[in-house]
Amino acid sequence: MIRKYSIGRPIETGSVVSKFPLSEGTPKGLTLQEGSTFVISLSDTAVVYGLGETVRGINKRGWKYISNCSDDPNHTESKNSLYAAHNFVLILDKEEATGYYFDTPEKVIFDIGYTRLDQMAVTLTKGDAYIYEITADITGMNTMAGAEDSSPRRVVRQFRQMIGRSYIPPLWAFGYGQSRWGYRCRKDIENVIAGYEEADIPLDSVYMDIDYMERYKDFTVDEEKFPQFGEFVSEVKKKNIHLVPIIDAGVKIEEGYDVYEEGVRDGHFCKKEDGKELVAAVWPGRVHFPDFFQEKTRKWFGEKYDVLLKQGIDGFWNDMNEPAIFYTEEGLTEAFSRIKEYEGKNLDIQSFFDFQSVVGSLNNNPKDYARFYHNYEGQKIRHDKVHNLYGYLMTRAAGEAFRRLSPDKRILLFSRSSYIGMHRYGGVWTGDNQSWWSHMLLNIQQLPGLNMCGFLFSGADTGGFGADCTEDIVLRWLAVSLYTPLFRNHAALGTRDQELYRFVHKDWMRGLIRLRYALIPYLYSEFMKAAFRDDLYIQPLSFVYTEDERARNVEDQLLVGESIMIAPVYTQNATGRMVYLPEEMKMLRFAGDSLVEESVLAKGDHYIPVSLKEAVMFLRPGHALPLAKPAKTTAELDLDHLTYLTFNARPEDYELYRDDGITPVKE
Amino acid sequence: MIRKYSIGRPIETGSVVSKFPLSEGTPKGLTLQEGSTFVISLSDTAVVYGLGETVRGINKRGWKYISNCSDDPNHTESKNSLYAAHNFVLILDKEEATGYYFDTPEKVIFDIGYTRLDQMAVTLTKGDAYIYEITADITGMNTMAGAEDSSPRRVVRQFRQMIGRSYIPPLWAFGYGQSRWGYRCRKDIENVIAGYEEADIPLDSVYMDIDYMERYKDFTVDEEKFPQFGEFVSEVKKKNIHLVPIIDAGVKIEEGYDVYEEGVRDGHFCKKEDGKELVAAVWPGRVHFPDFFQEKTRKWFGEKYDVLLKQGIDGFWNDMNEPAIFYTEEGLTEAFSRIKEYEGKNLDIQSFFDFQSVVGSLNNNPKDYARFYHNYEGQKIRHDKVHNLYGYLMTRAAGEAFRRLSPDKRILLFSRSSYIGMHRYGGVWTGDNQSWWSHMLLNIQQLPGLNMCGFLFSGADTGGFGADCTEDIVLRWLAVSLYTPLFRNHAALGTRDQELYRFVHKDWMRGLIRLRYALIPYLYSEFMKAAFRDDLYIQPLSFVYTEDERARNVEDQLLVGESIMIAPVYTQNATGRMVYLPEEMKMLRFAGDSLVEESVLAKGDHYIPVSLKEAVMFLRPGHALPLAKPAKTTAELDLDHLTYLTFNARPEDYELYRDDGITPVKE
Repeated sequence: MIRKYSIGRPIETGSVVSKFPLSEGTPKGLTLQEGSTFVISLSDTAVVYGLGETVRGINKRGWKYISNCSDDPNHTESKNSLYAAHNFVLILDKEEATGYYFDTPEKVIFDIGYTRLDQMAVTLTKGDAYIYEITADITGMNTMAGAEDSSPRRVVRQFRQMIGRSYIPPLWAFGYGQSRWGYRCRKDIENVIAGYEEADIPLDSVYMDIDYMERYKDFTVDEEKFPQFGEFVSEVKKKNIHLVPIIDAGVKIEEGYDVYEEGVRDGHFCKKEDGKELVAAVWPGRVHFPDFFQEKTRKWFGEKYDVLLKQGIDGFWNDMNEPAIFYTEEGLTEAFSRIKEYEGKNLDIQSFFDFQSVVGSLNNNPKDYARFYHNYEGQKIRHDKVHNLYGYLMTRAAGEAFRRLSPDKRILLFSRSSYIGMHRYGGVWTGDNQSWWSHMLLNIQQLPGLNMCGFLFSGADTGGFGADCTEDIVLRWLAVSLYTPLFRNHAALGTRDQELYRFVHKDWMRGLIRLRYALIPYLYSEFMKAAFRDDLYIQPLSFVYTEDERARNVEDQLLVGESIMIAPVYTQNATGRMVYLPEEMKMLRFAGDSLVEESVLAKGDHYIPVSLKEAVMFLRPGHALPLAKPAKTTAELDLDHLTYLTFNARPEDYELYRDDGITPVKE
Repeated sequence: MIRKYSIGRPIETGSVVSKFPLSEGTPKGLTLQEGSTFVISLSDTAVVYGLGETVRGINKRGWKYISNCSDDPNHTESKNSLYAAHNFVLILDKEEATGYYFDTPEKVIFDIGYTRLDQMAVTLTKGDAYIYEITADITGMNTMAGAEDSSPRRVVRQFRQMIGRSYIPPLWAFGYGQSRWGYRCRKDIENVIAGYEEADIPLDSVYMDIDYMERYKDFTVDEEKFPQFGEFVSEVKKKNIHLVPIIDAGVKIEEGYDVYEEGVRDGHFCKKEDGKELVAAVWPGRVHFPDFFQEKTRKWFGEKYDVLLKQGIDGFWNDMNEPAIFYTEEGLTEAFSRIKEYEGKNLDIQSFFDFQSVVGSLNNNPKDYARFYHNYEGQKIRHDKVHNLYGYLMTRAAGEAFRRLSPDKRILLFSRSSYIGMHRYGGVWTGDNQSWWSHMLLNIQQLPGLNMCGFLFSGADTGGFGADCTEDIVLRWLAVSLYTPLFRNHAALGTRDQELYRFVHKDWMRGLIRLRYALIPYLYSEFMKAAFRDDLYIQPLSFVYTEDERARNVEDQLLVGESIMIAPVYTQNATGRMVYLPEEMKMLRFAGDSLVEESVLAKGDHYIPVSLKEAVMFLRPGHALPLAKPAKTTAELDLDHLTYLTFNARPEDYELYRDDGITPVKE
């Protein structure tokens, strides 16, 4: 049952696609306190799920999360905001679930046991929102044939149905991709492909970071570094490998650059109070930001992707669309003038830190987000009031355009910043993580929340983006990303080489990637079924084993699809780990893509040794797992001849989903 | 067996107190490669211990650690250096241990499975060091009556014997202490004491951070904020509470300030190439650094502590002695001039990040460490060549002075920066950590390495220094610091209040602190025995259960003293955890200081529920645990009437150590 409430004067975000009558008052389960704070008590055993891409555990209790899309690469436990605003929470108390969705572009503060261990307080900072209260009572709802049922899943399915079907990428997007900030030219990318070929490691895509553009201008390709780009794309595609370029939210200010000139001419850029375009800065230095709140601008910007589509590109990642701001013209001018005040003085601890912060706080400064406006359905709205929608609308611009520009072919699309609603147009990657073991765990813990919020197509920068990786972290991370729809290895400029063929144990790397390809029939089937049924592709144990108290507190195991539970090793030097089995399961031990052990384990705790080359998964009773013969690319997978691993089930019990992996799926 | 080798022209650090003949060549177990890199292969199962205060796990494999004392408050996994240089490693392969100590003030790079998983490569960046190779063969060594034996413990005991007995603090330093950057005046501190009194939570000390000084001048007390300081100290001491002020390495440049003027007059400050004193900046802004390499300066600076001793102070913490440098005069001038080059330009990603780094990289800049010199036994040595000794020598100055100034009373002393050798003069706290769950684990993992390196008196800022704490992280951290000799709650300016009486569940906090006081007879006995026997107070499981492969890989359980194993809960929202018992043990469950469960558990894995108010420990067979009746302060503990918890042992099997807790222990 879904009840919709309206508080203040909400802005329509477009995140909800179903219509609901407005209920009177405020949500029944919440107490409205001073201002716009909604409070609910939490029993000792209640677990709070949701919030999508945030820091900390699967259970969100014990921290204060602020929905405020932020470009902050230091994802430590004490951060309040990451790149996304996913305002959906689900409270599971005993076996009963209730969901709340706060549909508003404003900052929302989720104090979930931060101020008081025993309560959640949600504060609308402006006070305008639609609030949806979702209970597990599904009278009148589609029955979702085939899906396992539980109170939390009923809540999630209702929520997901109301926000619309999740984005479906092409099948090749389930292949393995290599990325790096620092592939400076065609030769660099050719070398990467050759490296994978020589090491005989499967590869479906190579990502192109900001290096490919001409002076960081969107929809340009540097002709010196990437001569005859279209031809290069086709050549690579002959090997069934896809190039996936990055697109930035900011448009470089440069005379003669068509996107810039058209944008100015046709009023596509965000303007300041005085009516002049805001001058902010990102990669190219000074840029204007397209006003994606204008339908005409979304259409215009979306069409621009065609420049690359026409050259054979069929995948994109939208970056810096919080939007990240290095500085604005005004902010930088102020900073230079303030800096001068410190010159020649004795700077003590306070004044020195102040001085450093003049320069250090230029990036993503709240003052800058109050300097410009959007034109949204005829209304002039200051950016900071609708900030959280910007990345979503950029990606919507692209997603809507692809439906027009590429009606016969799915286009891969994912974004850094997002708001619920964007899940219909693209996926997300979890941003600029680091080569930290704690970020591998964070990745595991973010996945259920992302799934609840509709972002089925998601994954982390495998191996870690920032900081230097080690061979063991890469191996262990492969054994996690094995299961995420987006499986991309990505690293930052200046960090240690992270392409798999660079390491000593290439054979172990190869084995794990081959296992991924073997799993694709399963992963793709489960993904598609979850999308069609508004269900979860990845879920916490408690969504199935709702009555199991131990399962409710498991923070490092997940259910992936209907058949398997995973329990990755995510600590350095561990030669194994304890795994909790909420029921009898069959352990499947793979050394690379070779099944080396099958054994039935009883419900309870087990110490499972897992070496660096292995991946261990747990097959649920009554379920089957289809496997393909590994291939060099998804295109070469033989999907007609699968083998099945089963546990008290027959292969035909498994509901396999197949399509051509390319044709867009009807709405 | 210890063999000493000399490479290049080593500088005498004073860290080793025993004399050894020089062996020819290089250590037998290491292969000398290009330059000054010593390499050793690591088998799959070998574990590398040691390095004291560093990031990552108990097993140091999988990272590159650089001995380079650094003031860096962001202790993430990818940092290479923290505040200390502890160049001792111990390799445990099968049951056989070998230790290596690289005694040199230069930067040493410990690449332990970073470049290659299967090797350790230690690089001397200048090439001058004494290297000690220590094997478990103890022919001719003291027998260490009473201590359990194993190959790794033999290696550690030999190493510890050669570096001299660890610092022994007064008994009251084992009590609980409250600290915060931000107690601005006498009233603030009185309020803290009153807060603890009202909440009936034991308290032995209140720390005074930089706020107490007059304009951050060492050995001054701000008379406005702390009028009649000596009287205040006595009043507080009537309650058996000790005030513990901070001392900074830098001496403020201020006309009329005696320490500054004497220092200049008598040649105590570090000078630049041109013979003028270096002008660096720390808390007070511009400072000079005492040249602690000069014996006369150590004596002079050490005597200065008497200003506070005379007012009744009997404990100090030495801070910022890496030394931290906010900027130097030269560095700041250069920065201001470079900043101007960026003004009025279009700053793109490279130039903008360069611009920010001009200001951001002022702190602790390597260029500044090359700007000044020490006078060490008649030689002029550039600071960066002996950098790692600075904090050690500052604390040595204080420690040596206390022997003269306070011959009848132990003085509490610990330091942020350290080098092996400093362990004879003071303890360490593990620096500016954060209220992160991962830092609670880091704290657990740092303790065995610190113990191996002689730093028995150590502990972390409980609850976390930086970032906002939550009530649950404070409770769980109390249940870790319960066992560390230094047990101090400390928090940074601007973070959430962290005094225990500020929280809802004061009674739970009280219970855990009372448990600490109950444990003091045990903790103090174990500490003193470890100090007298050059043994470990806290050790990894593998040091006792050497043949147990599971035990070798346990990263989150420790042995504390001879009787107990601990397995703290260090993840948020966990209601318990898996614990590995390497042998049958008796679980002792305390709810606060009340024993609520005793049960014998078999060797193997157990899921142990632990609520936020509880502490669970595991009593080893054949051992006993003495407990005192909790009291408000250590002074009020009744040490004549102890009770004993036992497991297949009698109370009299326990070797209790008692002394007056004040009189300095003879060398």
